[in-house]
Amino acid sequence: MAVNLVVPDSSQLAVVEGLRLGTAEAGIRKTARKDLLLMMLDEGSSVAGVFTQNRFCAAPVEVARRHLAGGTVRALLINTGCANAGTGAEGVRRAMASCEAVAKLLNCRADQVLPFSTGVIMEPLPVDRIAAALPKCVDDACTGDWLNAARAIMTTDTVPKAASKTINIDGHNVTITGIAKGSGMIRPNMATMLGFIATDAIVAPELLQQIVTYASDRTFNCVTVDGDTSTNDALMLIATGKSKLPLIQTVQSPAFRILLDAVTDVAGELAQALVRDGEGATKFITVRVESGANESECRKVGYAIAHSPLVKTAFFASDPNLGRILAAIGYAGIDDMDVSRVDLFLDDVLVASGGARHPGYLEEDGKRVMKQSEITVRVLLNRGASDATLWTCDLSHDYVSINADYRS
Amino acid sequence: MAVNLVVPDSSQLAVVEGLRLGTAEAGIRKTARKDLLLMMLDEGSSVAGVFTQNRFCAAPVEVARRHLAGGTVRALLINTGCANAGTGAEGVRRAMASCEAVAKLLNCRADQVLPFSTGVIMEPLPVDRIAAALPKCVDDACTGDWLNAARAIMTTDTVPKAASKTINIDGHNVTITGIAKGSGMIRPNMATMLGFIATDAIVAPELLQQIVTYASDRTFNCVTVDGDTSTNDALMLIATGKSKLPLIQTVQSPAFRILLDAVTDVAGELAQALVRDGEGATKFITVRVESGANESECRKVGYAIAHSPLVKTAFFASDPNLGRILAAIGYAGIDDMDVSRVDLFLDDVLVASGGARHPGYLEEDGKRVMKQSEITVRVLLNRGASDATLWTCDLSHDYVSINADYRS
Repeated sequence: MAVNLVVPDSSQLAVVEGLRLGTAEAGIRKTARKDLLLMMLDEGSSVAGVFTQNRFCAAPVEVARRHLAGGTVRALLINTGCANAGTGAEGVRRAMASCEAVAKLLNCRADQVLPFSTGVIMEPLPVDRIAAALPKCVDDACTGDWLNAARAIMTTDTVPKAASKTINIDGHNVTITGIAKGSGMIRPNMATMLGFIATDAIVAPELLQQIVTYASDRTFNCVTVDGDTSTNDALMLIATGKSKLPLIQTVQSPAFRILLDAVTDVAGELAQALVRDGEGATKFITVRVESGANESECRKVGYAIAHSPLVKTAFFASDPNLGRILAAIGYAGIDDMDVSRVDLFLDDVLVASGGARHPGYLEEDGKRVMKQSEITVRVLLNRGASDATLWTCDLSHDYVSINADYRS
Repeated sequence: MAVNLVVPDSSQLAVVEGLRLGTAEAGIRKTARKDLLLMMLDEGSSVAGVFTQNRFCAAPVEVARRHLAGGTVRALLINTGCANAGTGAEGVRRAMASCEAVAKLLNCRADQVLPFSTGVIMEPLPVDRIAAALPKCVDDACTGDWLNAARAIMTTDTVPKAASKTINIDGHNVTITGIAKGSGMIRPNMATMLGFIATDAIVAPELLQQIVTYASDRTFNCVTVDGDTSTNDALMLIATGKSKLPLIQTVQSPAFRILLDAVTDVAGELAQALVRDGEGATKFITVRVESGANESECRKVGYAIAHSPLVKTAFFASDPNLGRILAAIGYAGIDDMDVSRVDLFLDDVLVASGGARHPGYLEEDGKRVMKQSEITVRVLLNRGASDATLWTCDLSHDYVSINADYRS
């Protein structure tokens, strides 16, 4: 049951000209469900992306990274049901074979296709079934159905995730629409997070990469730890160039900044949706760490809180056992931290000041906040001017059920 | 329900001469249960110990560390129900007050008393109730009842934990007996681990510290991450010197090595008992990482596996979803790891070789091992000669229940 998250209104998901979406039932793992998405790009599009830092990166990540470095991209192929990870050289061969099947249909080169997979790992990718279903993707393709595309990439997600924004830059409408999948966000799950955002703006390639890196650092990377990403994570940003806005060529141009913020907004909405649909989540928790010496230490403290099973179970129980948060701050790895300066707020309630329970803190105030479905944990380190914000959810019985039964 | 762990046989817990144990019901948090233990040491005893690395260390840890540095110790006072952590200067004052109450009764100095607390944090320590119960501890004191002492320090433990060993060094019997508490070992819990081991050997103070550090590194620290310890963790080693064995003065003496190994054995039994009684545990899992470049990287890989909620829920479900283990190895933070050299065994079953599913691996073999209550995960990094072994347990529904309801 997702936290304050509903199925997106399809009519609010703006078409991005220059991009067609086709889905099919390939029967990769389960029957009678869409499990294949083909995104076809018109000529002149450009693509940038960020990928998992996991050393055991999946075969499709390896192939997509290589193909992306090669230059032009004409299609992105996404399958669910099988992550094609932990599959060695044979996995790479199969990922390549799926690109070749697309290339044949679309009359492009295999290295112009980026493959993405999500699902169970250490299972071989059923390329034959994918190849057999691809013509259906092409036949069905249309510019409009982002919601359908979002559904086709779901695994344990309970709600399809899509977001869209239309902005005006210099008198020209520019559209940004994206989809994402993932719901194992308590700790980044296997093959958890895939995000695809498209805009009809046109942006110089190196700037496009800057935008996707900037946006992911402030959104998708705020629900995960760098060294703790799954084998298949990827966030791709596609620019089709079909809007009338001239090419964005410099970071100094106002258009760059406006687009950067809009892409970050869309990515933020998608990233928050992942947490809201976190496996077993009953609460959406914002962890904000302020007045740190630098952003890195604020993130460390934030992650220590956001990853603590004890903190997360306390949220699930609406139990203001807030000493657990102090303990997490204490083991975050900031060696020279003076804990006697730390303040802790739960929404507007001052729980701890100067490293100890605040004299005016009343348990019933803590309880009141803990019962809400949206809670902000605010930590003041009082040692600098940096801050960081992360998003997480609670740890419930359903998390265990979902992950214990995922493959059955 | 602890995994293959029974209540120790009291008759097997050897008396350590020179040490008396007294318990009482102080009513600190719950009534009608022993929640106070006083360990009284004869003159001539020496004590060494290791403490939590948490920056938010509890007030008693601060006081015990200071008193231990001061020299002679005549008593250790342990209470459950309240951790006296996150309590600031007032917490230190109360910890000191409890030492003073002991000192008054035993006719020693307050700085000869080491205080230890475990339980809920951010609550004030009820010193008055402790002081009122202390005479009962003194009146009841006897050398023998280690099992009773183990019971008095339990919190969410379901089984009291004690271990004992009698060895012969140079013709003299030497006894080592210890107790421990803690059961939130999936990730180190609040105020989780307290261990007290006593021997009747006599050891030069600096060597005693070496022994406790060595033993904890190989036992208690193998069920936790250094930077991730609770606010109150402590392992203390007491040497009363009542055996006839002469003073152990050098690390070169055979007696030192024999005692070191025996203390490590007792500590290992206690540490494993913590995991076996891990909150909600249904399985005991040994994670052994071999052929790493150094011990530190083996530990990193081991902890990544041992801490992954996804791996732990798969064990709970007896689901050989072993790709999750590969993924954890991949995000362990070994930047130059060549995953194509990694082998993975589940007991004797070779699951993955060369970084991918082993061709001969059969799912039913994996399932067979996963159904056992004791499982060994063995990872070969194939890049060096170092290794490390950790112990952990699975993640079950009961873990969530226990931690969601801990205070209620």
